[in-house]
Amino acid sequence: MARTRKPELGVCYYPEHWPETIWADDAQRMVEMGLSWVRIGEFAWSRIETEPGQFEWGWLDRAIKTLGQAGLKVIMSTPTATPPRWMLDRHPDMLAWDAAGRPRTFGSRRHYDFSHAGYRDEAVRITSILGSRYGRDPHIRAWQLDNEYGCHDTTLSYSPVARNAFHSWLEDRYGSIDALNERWGNVFWSMDYQAFDQIELPNLTVTEPNPSHAMDFRRFASDQVVAFNQAKVDALRPLTDAELLHNYMGRITDFDHFDVGQPLDIATWDSYPLGFLEDRSDRDDAFKYAHMRCGDPDFQAFHHDLYRAVGRGRWWVLEQQPGPVNWAPHNPAPAPGMVRLWALEAFAHGAEVVCFFRWRQAPFAQEQNHAGLLRPDGELSEGGREITALAAELDRLPGDELPPARVAIVFDYASQWAWEVQPQDRQFDYFRLVFDIYCGLRRAGLAVDILPPSANNFGDRDLVFIPGLFAWTDALRGVMQNFTERTILGPRTGSRTEDFSVPDDLPPGLSGITVSAVETLRPEAPIELAEAGSLQIWSEQVSTDWVVLERALDDRPVRLRQGTLDYWTGWPDAKALDRWIAQLCEEAGLAMAHQSGSRRIQRIAQGHLAMDYITSQASFIE
Amino acid sequence: MARTRKPELGVCYYPEHWPETIWADDAQRMVEMGLSWVRIGEFAWSRIETEPGQFEWGWLDRAIKTLGQAGLKVIMSTPTATPPRWMLDRHPDMLAWDAAGRPRTFGSRRHYDFSHAGYRDEAVRITSILGSRYGRDPHIRAWQLDNEYGCHDTTLSYSPVARNAFHSWLEDRYGSIDALNERWGNVFWSMDYQAFDQIELPNLTVTEPNPSHAMDFRRFASDQVVAFNQAKVDALRPLTDAELLHNYMGRITDFDHFDVGQPLDIATWDSYPLGFLEDRSDRDDAFKYAHMRCGDPDFQAFHHDLYRAVGRGRWWVLEQQPGPVNWAPHNPAPAPGMVRLWALEAFAHGAEVVCFFRWRQAPFAQEQNHAGLLRPDGELSEGGREITALAAELDRLPGDELPPARVAIVFDYASQWAWEVQPQDRQFDYFRLVFDIYCGLRRAGLAVDILPPSANNFGDRDLVFIPGLFAWTDALRGVMQNFTERTILGPRTGSRTEDFSVPDDLPPGLSGITVSAVETLRPEAPIELAEAGSLQIWSEQVSTDWVVLERALDDRPVRLRQGTLDYWTGWPDAKALDRWIAQLCEEAGLAMAHQSGSRRIQRIAQGHLAMDYITSQASFIE
Amino acid sequence: MARTRKPELGVCYYPEHWPETIWADDAQRMVEMGLSWVRIGEFAWSRIETEPGQFEWGWLDRAIKTLGQAGLKVIMSTPTATPPRWMLDRHPDMLAWDAAGRPRTFGSRRHYDFSHAGYRDEAVRITSILGSRYGRDPHIRAWQLDNEYGCHDTTLSYSPVARNAFHSWLEDRYGSIDALNERWGNVFWSMDYQAFDQIELPNLTVTEPNPSHAMDFRRFASDQVVAFNQAKVDALRPLTDAELLHNYMGRITDFDHFDVGQPLDIATWDSYPLGFLEDRSDRDDAFKYAHMRCGDPDFQAFHHDLYRAVGRGRWWVLEQQPGPVNWAPHNPAPAPGMVRLWALEAFAHGAEVVCFFRWRQAPFAQEQNHAGLLRPDGELSEGGREITALAAELDRLPGDELPPARVAIVFDYASQWAWEVQPQDRQFDYFRLVFDIYCGLRRAGLAVDILPPSANNFGDRDLVFIPGLFAWTDALRGVMQNFTERTILGPRTGSRTEDFSVPDDLPPGLSGITVSAVETLRPEAPIELAEAGSLQIWSEQVSTDWVVLERALDDRPVRLRQGTLDYWTGWPDAKALDRWIAQLCEEAGLAMAHQSGSRRIQRIAQGHLAMDYITSQASFIE
Repeated sequence: MARTRKPELGVCYYPEHWPETIWADDAQRMVEMGLSWVRIGEFAWSRIETEPGQFEWGWLDRAIKTLGQAGLKVIMSTPTATPPRWMLDRHPDMLAWDAAGRPRTFGSRRHYDFSHAGYRDEAVRITSILGSRYGRDPHIRAWQLDNEYGCHDTTLSYSPVARNAFHSWLEDRYGSIDALNERWGNVFWSMDYQAFDQIELPNLTVTEPNPSHAMDFRRFASDQVVAFNQAKVDALRPLTDAELLHNYMGRITDFDHFDVGQPLDIATWDSYPLGFLEDRSDRDDAFKYAHMRCGDPDFQAFHHDLYRAVGRGRWWVLEQQPGPVNWAPHNPAPAPGMVRLWALEAFAHGAEVVCFFRWRQAPFAQEQNHAGLLRPDGELSEGGREITALAAELDRLPGDELPPARVAIVFDYASQWAWEVQPQDRQFDYFRLVFDIYCGLRRAGLAVDILPPSANNFGDRDLVFIPGLFAWTDALRGVMQNFTERTILGPRTGSRTEDFSVPDDLPPGLSGITVSAVETLRPEAPIELAEAGSLQIWSEQVSTDWVVLERALDDRPVRLRQGTLDYWTGWPDAKALDRWIAQLCEEAGLAMAHQSGSRRIQRIAQGHLAMDYITSQASFIE
Repeated sequence: MARTRKPELGVCYYPEHWPETIWADDAQRMVEMGLSWVRIGEFAWSRIETEPGQFEWGWLDRAIKTLGQAGLKVIMSTPTATPPRWMLDRHPDMLAWDAAGRPRTFGSRRHYDFSHAGYRDEAVRITSILGSRYGRDPHIRAWQLDNEYGCHDTTLSYSPVARNAFHSWLEDRYGSIDALNERWGNVFWSMDYQAFDQIELPNLTVTEPNPSHAMDFRRFASDQVVAFNQAKVDALRPLTDAELLHNYMGRITDFDHFDVGQPLDIATWDSYPLGFLEDRSDRDDAFKYAHMRCGDPDFQAFHHDLYRAVGRGRWWVLEQQPGPVNWAPHNPAPAPGMVRLWALEAFAHGAEVVCFFRWRQAPFAQEQNHAGLLRPDGELSEGGREITALAAELDRLPGDELPPARVAIVFDYASQWAWEVQPQDRQFDYFRLVFDIYCGLRRAGLAVDILPPSANNFGDRDLVFIPGLFAWTDALRGVMQNFTERTILGPRTGSRTEDFSVPDDLPPGLSGITVSAVETLRPEAPIELAEAGSLQIWSEQVSTDWVVLERALDDRPVRLRQGTLDYWTGWPDAKALDRWIAQLCEEAGLAMAHQSGSRRIQRIAQGHLAMDYITSQASFIE
Repeated sequence: MARTRKPELGVCYYPEHWPETIWADDAQRMVEMGLSWVRIGEFAWSRIETEPGQFEWGWLDRAIKTLGQAGLKVIMSTPTATPPRWMLDRHPDMLAWDAAGRPRTFGSRRHYDFSHAGYRDEAVRITSILGSRYGRDPHIRAWQLDNEYGCHDTTLSYSPVARNAFHSWLEDRYGSIDALNERWGNVFWSMDYQAFDQIELPNLTVTEPNPSHAMDFRRFASDQVVAFNQAKVDALRPLTDAELLHNYMGRITDFDHFDVGQPLDIATWDSYPLGFLEDRSDRDDAFKYAHMRCGDPDFQAFHHDLYRAVGRGRWWVLEQQPGPVNWAPHNPAPAPGMVRLWALEAFAHGAEVVCFFRWRQAPFAQEQNHAGLLRPDGELSEGGREITALAAELDRLPGDELPPARVAIVFDYASQWAWEVQPQDRQFDYFRLVFDIYCGLRRAGLAVDILPPSANNFGDRDLVFIPGLFAWTDALRGVMQNFTERTILGPRTGSRTEDFSVPDDLPPGLSGITVSAVETLRPEAPIELAEAGSLQIWSEQVSTDWVVLERALDDRPVRLRQGTLDYWTGWPDAKALDRWIAQLCEEAGLAMAHQSGSRRIQRIAQGHLAMDYITSQASFIE
């Protein structure tokens, strides 16, 4: 899987923001800069349908023609992330509600509830109308559906509309209220229901709600995004042969991206390395300071690998940070060369296209401090200059397909929801657990693939990690059992049933190991290992007949093995993790880059093709 | 007062959570483990009264019979902490509202407003029905009323129902609105009312409400708990000869436990040493780290002593932590031996019974990570093994009555409310002030009794402390004046009238001392004393004709004495406190344990009988 | 401008709080203490108009007469900050709403929405009635209108009433909804409106609202305060010849004080040095610890200078802290001599009158821990003793007019709002930027004048600073161009148009400089300069043909000059600022006090007349 053509560049453009008189010049400059793709239309609904049923096509027709005739491939967007103000008159209850029980009002974007059937129909309507008009336009080569699902915490809504939709979803899942009571264990605190419509959303309860209740709400919310997206795909697919895609965000885990991505052709994401470092990273201040102008290289890399999986090999960066942004707590400028380097990093991970956000910095409204390739006055920005240079280098990049990595990690969105519902320790976070292991593998110079929990097989790999999995499916257990190389499990893997109960035979659901108790640990109180490193945050007490590979100083078993399976009873810190990975690599005959003296050469040999550029530019990234 | 029979053990059990087929085996195992008591029924309402008026008695009859015939004494509970969902259809306005003005919804527990008359009637109704059915059952030896009043911040409700009830309460207290205006001082900011029903609850005001207003709301809220409990006692008492009790919690001070406990026979509490350390302790991180597996010994001890006072000598632990829990920010496992040790600590403070929560870890719903004596699969847990061993040791424990301690502290819930209403410094907290002095006395190896502010006399004691008392009553002042040994007062003692005004002759309401000004202190800025230690947080400027025992470096009087009374003008840090206590002990001829080389032997001599066990097990507790 | 008569002292008094029998004695003691002014009536509405239309004049008539005949000049207040409870029955929707969407209820003070027309009429009504009765009373020498506008975050209200008023305000400003859409740039995210009444207040949006939208709401909110005040001035002015004033607070910037102050005769403010240090200062803990008993001298000084500008030269302190207060996180006592010293500091800055809050400490209601000149029992407090001594010294103080300072800073409330709307970095705050420069000038021993952005000219000065100005007006640009001495601009000066857009020719709107990009900086990551110091928080990338006076280590231009204008491209830390100010002073021939060895003498030479007193008392102020 992965890229089968030469890398390409593109840009996000909003013709409705600028006088029509400059469109042609803009288009020509894009082409001259070496850009191939231009995305338009994502927030233009109020200028397309000025009143309900009243359309203004002229400007959009001319914009597409101008861009297309200049030689650009156009990505058309459905503008459903920004319904016009008149939409609220038609659907006054379409707004999402926050967890405090308040409607989230008009005045910015993403002001809709995914579960609102009336708005879903409107979204399908405008999608169909746009598809009918432009679906066969030869300039339109791809369609972006909506924009950044889930951004601004918009997956979860606590509105009355969502409450009603949740009742239907529960009825579909459980059939009868008695079955729900039984599977949720509502007897626990006299929480039995007599009817589905008695069930509240799980916010504002006196103390924590039943985790089965909370977990089903999370599944429901994810399913609403899936259904919203699917309805639009269904409307658009018959009207166009262009590829359909969505632009995901960084570290948004409230909906299952594998499910949303299923009917789409390509996964894309919006990569803001500096913004994400300040706003969405668990790294400490020292790390953030050291990386304030380059971002966390592993954060981008993880998402590149994740969305390559979501796109079943096909993925783009649809918005790449081109300079300082406006939305993080601190917004420094990228180091010289970084904008180019980020693009190369994406290509090294198999991106087909990297687009920049945005063409010209907007002097008005919410993002006026967000850099573009051009300054507001039309001059090239620093980022614009770098991209101009980069475009000239594209021919040097290979277009070969990326081979599978020797190592993979299963990433399961449901596990994120489960452990948000039931963290058991303030520090526990599923994304952080997976990302810790990912970073350990990167420190070892290994390329990594992400696998969905629905993978049919683990492929031709040497090591597959399944940390923190909420609940086994028979299918995943079967895939693991059929895998002849090593699978590393734990901590917390398989610790609950799908109904969010402790399994009858106790976790982890593997023959020969029983997790008899769990404890979580203050930051100052790790479990020291006999060799370097320690367990942090999470430690399990097990009884087992597996081989104990390693014990802690207090003698508790830490690493266990039986056949192809390893089980880790706790969350290793970086020292322990590095040691364990080194040992696994040695056993598997996997060369680690830092052993051979050049992890980057090793990575390139594994298909991360542009890392030589990165090395030459960014010796400060370590 | 205190224990007059051999210590006993027990456990909390939820037969409705498990197949009936295993009840008999469970009961037999309990007996074999050495348990005497089993508590049931506290959350079972939805399985007892499945629809309004529709009762399912069979399972409960059989559960009681099974447990009782196995030789267990049964504690029956009224299930009023978890009204079934159908109750909300009958009383849609029965939910409490939070301080932000939002109903706290169904889906967990304690979802009722104490001031809702309709729900109070329902609680009486189910209590009467249960009492009628089981009040004379020979297996039922005690009744628990409701569960953990006030837990999850449920004492204070800001609902319209509470607002109306508050109006009636105020009318009862003041008679006329003019009297209220006068006694609250509403002239201050034109806050005069014309009628009681104009008065809002004191949340959401523009800036702080009148402290008299806020204080009355706190009294009202406490009185609602008292009345709710009293109504159930009144219903149950004629129907049974078994003992009535309630299980209080740790560091819940929103209602007056002395008042609630007045009509009950026994005070019990739910002791979770590790959970409370992480969740409800003011200790610093270093202390928490050092005690993460044993808890704060003084925290348990304080509550043992407090609830011994609430129970007028009779008290139990009704829920004791048996292993890791699920609800604190970090949830480590107890050190080996701690579960047994905590039980012994309780017995040493005079507990009659220690019950563990719970029998078998529940694999479903909110507490699935809360350990029991059995694991979810029925095997003994670590805690279960310790309790099995402990039960065999019970015969070695004495059953003698606990003599009064030589030292006592008056603990006044109203003072907690008052200084929450008017802290005057971010750090000021009445519980912390009292607990600081308690810990100082414990460091000195002294046993301590807690006294209610309504005590008729201070008894045969050498030292009585009354720190931070909000307002004198004539009765308490009289008790103090009749006490021939030493009373230590201050800081902040007697600084307000019952109406929450400064007394006409200024605090502290003692002849010969006038507090002319008060200042509060940044953490970095204590008032250094001439000898070791300093004042922190709070310091009073006084004019006095008492003897000045000690002055600060800046010459301000710190400790004053006249006759049997001492007055402290500030909040001593640990160094100063230890020094002052040592001096008081010396004057009183009280031997301090650490002076004699063995504080624990000293404590045992004072009636803390099981501390030898503690010492032998827990050399790490210091 | 400034003081033209001998300094005077006064006090705030609430006759309605005390028995009429002690008024005469109180008045006599005030006079004997040396006080000339007494303020009354500000919270007395419920005792003046006990029911709607039912007035009780007797007590107030007698109180004025008693005070006036004792020789005191009376400041009468309109009691509109505390409408009685019955007012809510007449205007149930008069309450302001908080940003979370909740009404802010009755029970304290300032419980009204500035935009409520009905309440505004009521405020005019009571003002007219009071003016008619007392406007020509010879004892009434000044009127205070309302009390502390904006205190307790009351400028901004998110009520339905405010929403409607905002629509009218917008319609007045923009004329048509199309014009608003165009000038706000609502095309950006399909935010176009079809009608004014569709526009929500900018709270509770899904993500940040359009900054133009948020900024207009801030302007609207300020205008409501201005209009409320103007309506009362209009009612009162014809009825009295006494002077009209308002008492502002410290660091309240939600409304434009220059606009509010325009129709008033005198600006006064309420100075609580210790409370403000703990509650409203950006200083770090070390600074707060060092100044915990004296306050931040520059904080008082800044506000003295600010309100001297607001009062067009005429200003008072109307409430001065006399001892510990009740409302800060920590409330220490002032150092001995400080109460007197604060008064002298105010006189040194040109205050005509300093009044103390309050006469006698109130034993009831919200401020019972707030010191007065008397204790609650009528004895002199520490502060009272100092004031008695101070009064005897007043004759030694000069009454000369204060000459203009050589240095001035333009302070623009709109810039505060703008950068709250769009901080671009968590640390950016306009007040802090201005105050940093002010403190640098104070460290240099310079007296400073504050100028409004509407100043007609910069006067006879050597240096004028305009940091962080949101948007140029033609008038201000003209004043600057006509100024023949040096103006120092930047950072962020002139970076937006009045519509909150980036100017077409990019900031700062000065010929020859273009800010091409902006970055903001983590606290650990300043831009080091080649000489001492660094840029923090904010740094601009510029292209320019101005002379570059200084570059950072990484070569970025930092200080630029052309003709009379300097431009700073970033926010200097204290070291850089001191160095730059020293250089500017040297160039301007301005002697810095610390250069001449005695900054205080220098200050006195510049008109800060009482600083010798300060020096002698407070060697710890540096």
